[in-house]
Amino acid sequence: MKKFYRCVKCQTIYPFNRDILTCPKHSKYYGYLTLIYDYKNVKLGNDKNVFKKYKNLFPLEEFEINFNEQKTPLIKLNKFGVKHELSNLYVKDESKNPTGSFKDKESLFAINMALKWEVSNIFVVSSGNAAISTAAYAQKAGLKYTSYVPKNLSVGKRFLIGLYGGLVKEINGNYEEIYRKAIDMPFPGWNCTPGLNPIKEEGIKVIGFEIFEEIGVPDVIIAPCGNGTLLFGLFKAFKELSFLGVTTKMPKFLGVQIRGASPLKSAFEQQEDFVKLNDIPSSIAEGIVAEESYSSPKVMYALEDTGGEIIEVSDSEITQAIKEIIKTESIIPEPTSAVAYAAIEKVNINKNDKVVLINTAGGQKNLKEIMQLLIKAS
Amino acid sequence: MKKFYRCVKCQTIYPFNRDILTCPKHSKYYGYLTLIYDYKNVKLGNDKNVFKKYKNLFPLEEFEINFNEQKTPLIKLNKFGVKHELSNLYVKDESKNPTGSFKDKESLFAINMALKWEVSNIFVVSSGNAAISTAAYAQKAGLKYTSYVPKNLSVGKRFLIGLYGGLVKEINGNYEEIYRKAIDMPFPGWNCTPGLNPIKEEGIKVIGFEIFEEIGVPDVIIAPCGNGTLLFGLFKAFKELSFLGVTTKMPKFLGVQIRGASPLKSAFEQQEDFVKLNDIPSSIAEGIVAEESYSSPKVMYALEDTGGEIIEVSDSEITQAIKEIIKTESIIPEPTSAVAYAAIEKVNINKNDKVVLINTAGGQKNLKEIMQLLIKAS
Repeated sequence: MKKFYRCVKCQTIYPFNRDILTCPKHSKYYGYLTLIYDYKNVKLGNDKNVFKKYKNLFPLEEFEINFNEQKTPLIKLNKFGVKHELSNLYVKDESKNPTGSFKDKESLFAINMALKWEVSNIFVVSSGNAAISTAAYAQKAGLKYTSYVPKNLSVGKRFLIGLYGGLVKEINGNYEEIYRKAIDMPFPGWNCTPGLNPIKEEGIKVIGFEIFEEIGVPDVIIAPCGNGTLLFGLFKAFKELSFLGVTTKMPKFLGVQIRGASPLKSAFEQQEDFVKLNDIPSSIAEGIVAEESYSSPKVMYALEDTGGEIIEVSDSEITQAIKEIIKTESIIPEPTSAVAYAAIEKVNINKNDKVVLINTAGGQKNLKEIMQLLIKAS
Repeated sequence: MKKFYRCVKCQTIYPFNRDILTCPKHSKYYGYLTLIYDYKNVKLGNDKNVFKKYKNLFPLEEFEINFNEQKTPLIKLNKFGVKHELSNLYVKDESKNPTGSFKDKESLFAINMALKWEVSNIFVVSSGNAAISTAAYAQKAGLKYTSYVPKNLSVGKRFLIGLYGGLVKEINGNYEEIYRKAIDMPFPGWNCTPGLNPIKEEGIKVIGFEIFEEIGVPDVIIAPCGNGTLLFGLFKAFKELSFLGVTTKMPKFLGVQIRGASPLKSAFEQQEDFVKLNDIPSSIAEGIVAEESYSSPKVMYALEDTGGEIIEVSDSEITQAIKEIIKTESIIPEPTSAVAYAAIEKVNINKNDKVVLINTAGGQKNLKEIMQLLIKAS
C-alpha cells in the first residue's frame, strides 16, 4: 500500500521515511505533516479486531513489540448523563492501556515504526504520560530512550521513567524552551515527541475506529488538548472513513484546554496556524497546560473542517467534574483527563446527541493529589 | 437453567438463593459451597464474547451494572520467559479491570447478583483491592456498602473506599478476628467477602474461559493466594469445561503464598480442610498475608484434583521478581501480585510447558512503595 507524507498547510508531498518529520517550508518545531494513504485502493477487512480490519489504514501491519493490547471500553454514562440532560453520553476509557494512558496507542505505533526503520535511539520531550509510555515500549523493544524534562521533575515521575529503562535529561527552561533546545541538538535521536512526529496520530486512529465499530459516528467528540494530537488523530480516523465512503457524517470535535493556557483557542479565534501565549497560569491539569501547541496547524484544520471549537475550563470546574464523575459512575480520572467531563457543562449539545468524551488517563496514580483537591473543595 | 449450591466437603445440596452462603454442617466462617449447573444441558454459544458464549455457566446473564468490561490481555513474556528457560510463558494481566484488580471480576458478579436478589446492603471484610472494587460497583448500583477494616487502615485506602461511596467501619483486631466479628453481627448485610461468598468464584471463571479461548488449556497456572478464591475460580472454569466434554486436560494449579504465612500450604501438607497459623510474619505482599484461608476446603479440592501445590516465596524473592519483570517486560505488578513471578524460580516446569501466571493487580498505585523496595534492594 502506497503512503506518503503531506503538509496540511501547503500540501507539499514527502516520502514516508524516518528522516522526515515535519515540513521544512514552515517550522521545524511544528507538526505539519500527516500520513496519506492510497485511499482508492484501501480495503477494509471483516475482522472484528480493529488492527486487522483497518490494517490498510495503518503505517504498519505488524507490531513486534506489544502488550497484546485489547480494545478499551466504551462506557455509557447513565447517571452522569442524566445529570447533564444527555441520554447518549459515553466515555472511551483509555486508562486501560498498558501504562494507563492513551499515549500507549501512540507508543505502540511509534516504537514499532522505529524498529522497522532501524532507529536505535529515540527521544521525547515530556515529563508526563508520554514520557512514561514511550519508556515502557522502548525498554521492551531494547531501544535507547531519552526523556528531556524540566529541572523540577518530581521524584516519582523520574523514578517511573527510569524504571522503564529511560534516561532522564534535565534542561533549563519551561516545556516550550526545552522542546526547542532538544530539537536544536546535533544528534538527539529520532524525535517521538507528540505533536511533532506524525506516526503518533496514526496510533490514535485506533481509538476512533473502535468507537466507530461500537456506536458508529458520534455527533460530538470531546477531547482534552495539550498539543492536540489526540483530537487530530480522532479526526483523521473519521475523515479517512469518509474518504473510503464508509460514512459521510463527521463528528463535531470539541477540544478542551485550560482557561488562560489555551493556545489552540487563541489560534482558532485569530485564524492563525499557531499562537504562543505568555504568562500562562498553572493548573491541576498539568498535562495540558500549554504556551503553544505543536499540532496546532493540524488541529486548526480539524476544527474548521467539522465546525468544532476549543472549550476552556477552570481548575474549580475540573475539581467539580472529578467529584461528580466519581460519585455517579465510579470512574476516577486524572485531573488532566477530567477537563473532558468539565467541558460538558459549557457547550450546547442536544439531549439525544451521541456524545463521546475521552478519558485519557486514570487517577489511581494521582490519588493523593485528588484527595487534596477534593478536601480543599469540600 | 437449573442451578444449586453444593458443599465441596459433604456434597449436601442447597437451593441457589441469597440466604445461603456456606454449609451449616461445617463452619459459618468458611466457604464450603459452590454453584453447580445442570451440565448435561449446558450449551456453549459461538460468540467470541466470553459472557455470551459461556452464559449457561454463569449465575446470571445480564449485568445491569457494568463498566463495559473488556477481555484482559494475555501477554507472552518473551524476555522474562527466556531468562527462566520457559518458551511458552504468559501473563494474564488483570490490572486492566475497572478498578485495577481481578477483584472487579468478582464484584461484577456479586453486585449484579445482589441487585437481582434485591439485596440493598452489602459488606466485605477487606481493606484492600476487594474493598475498593466492591465499593466502586456498589456505588454505581446504588447499594449501601460497608467495609469492615482493622484500626490501622491507611488514609489513602480509607479515602478511596469513601470516594466510591463506601462506609468504613473499624473493628479491633487483626483481619481474621474482624472477619469473625463481622459475621457474628446481627444484621451486617449480605456478606460479599471473598473466600466465603460463592458468587465470587463464578466471576473468576471469566478469566479461565478467556485463557481457554486464547491458548486452550495451559499446563500450569500460577496464582497468588490469600483466601484462594482466584485459584479455585480458575480451577472451576477448567473443571466445568471438562464436565462439558470440551476438554479432558486440566492445568496443574500452583498457588503462591508468603513463607510462614501460608495456611493453604499447611492445610495441604497436613491433609486438613483448613489450618490456622499463629505468629505469622508481615510481608510486602500484604494482600495475601494470611493466618487462615476461608476458601481452604475448596482450594484443597483443586490441588488434590490437579496435582497442584502451594509455593512459598519470601519478600526478597518478590522484590527480585518485581525488578526483573519490569526490566524485561515493562510490566509493574503490585508486590502482592509479584509473588506469581517470584514462584517461577521455585518449581519444576518443563521448558515447553504452556504456563500462565496471573497478574492480579498493577503497581502504578503502589509506586512509592515499589520505589522504596527497589532502592533498599539495590
